[in-house]
Amino acid sequence: MSQAGLAGVTLGVLADQVGMSKSGLFAHFKSKEEVQIELLEHSAEFAAARVVAPAMRAEEGLPRLQALVANWFGWPRRNGLPGGCPVAAGFFEYDDVESPVRDKILEMESEWRGLLTALVRQAVDRGQLRRDLDVAQFIWELSGIYLSHHVASRFMRSPDADKRSDIAFAALLARAAPAPADKRRKRTK
Amino acid sequence: MSQAGLAGVTLGVLADQVGMSKSGLFAHFKSKEEVQIELLEHSAEFAAARVVAPAMRAEEGLPRLQALVANWFGWPRRNGLPGGCPVAAGFFEYDDVESPVRDKILEMESEWRGLLTALVRQAVDRGQLRRDLDVAQFIWELSGIYLSHHVASRFMRSPDADKRSDIAFAALLARAAPAPADKRRKRTK
Repeated sequence: MSQAGLAGVTLGVLADQVGMSKSGLFAHFKSKEEVQIELLEHSAEFAAARVVAPAMRAEEGLPRLQALVANWFGWPRRNGLPGGCPVAAGFFEYDDVESPVRDKILEMESEWRGLLTALVRQAVDRGQLRRDLDVAQFIWELSGIYLSHHVASRFMRSPDADKRSDIAFAALLARAAPAPADKRRKRTK
Repeated sequence: MSQAGLAGVTLGVLADQVGMSKSGLFAHFKSKEEVQIELLEHSAEFAAARVVAPAMRAEEGLPRLQALVANWFGWPRRNGLPGGCPVAAGFFEYDDVESPVRDKILEMESEWRGLLTALVRQAVDRGQLRRDLDVAQFIWELSGIYLSHHVASRFMRSPDADKRSDIAFAALLARAAPAPADKRRKRTK
């Protein structure tokens, strides 16, 4: 799935890869969409264990947010998947398609943005990011940096994707830094 | 193509849409890939006329760059195409595929970034953007804003995609604004 895209995962291809007959696979899955959803759920569990869990060991607040972003960018290749992020690919593959696969991707992305929102809010609460930060805008722009990194590293095969995304994320954090008034308020508490 | 993705453009689908027989189409095109490349070239001509040409009538420098960005974001829908940007979709569809279609998308993207580079440099030369601007970084981040806008407006179907991309682009321009030293240098000339 990470290489061929979700639509490239047919029961025939899957049967080949796992060494089962197509009819044997049909006994497990009623439709191609059911296979795709199962694979998406598997990739969510995989990412929860490899991307999210290690980041949650960092100190709550900005360090945890930074640890998550560091694990997130380029996560498929770093964890042995030869292809790209199935959710990012799904954004473009399923934008015009009404299907349970689209609904699944939407649900996964909402959960992901919910996690990012919680981490950004913790950094705001600790005075590490500005009190008046537009959290949704921050995450919207962060998602853009992720997508540009995905395109740069995978499609353009550019060697400087990590360097560019580091600069962009640092600039986003600098804009979100506590305003001097926030710092004063904190000091006088 | 804008709706089904490049891989969704088969000779059968195309024959249906243009009302020709599949064998009639085969007389024109030797392969599915040839059809896809022809469609990409057509979309480049379409975008040159609808997205680029009107922007080139704006004053050279920052106004022209801003006009191009305004025409670029959301260009397919604004110009009557029901689907998304075929190049953006191609980034995710052809990242792991070696094919002349991939080469074509890479060529189109290089030309596009070349145009953006020229316009950003003109704004730098006119003192409208900082002299020490990392132009490649600016375009890398602008591409991320475009991709996030594409996902927000098309996949997430979010009503605030235009507002969010406006804020992100304004912040990118603010970071690229001439430094006070640049302004002084200009004044003393």
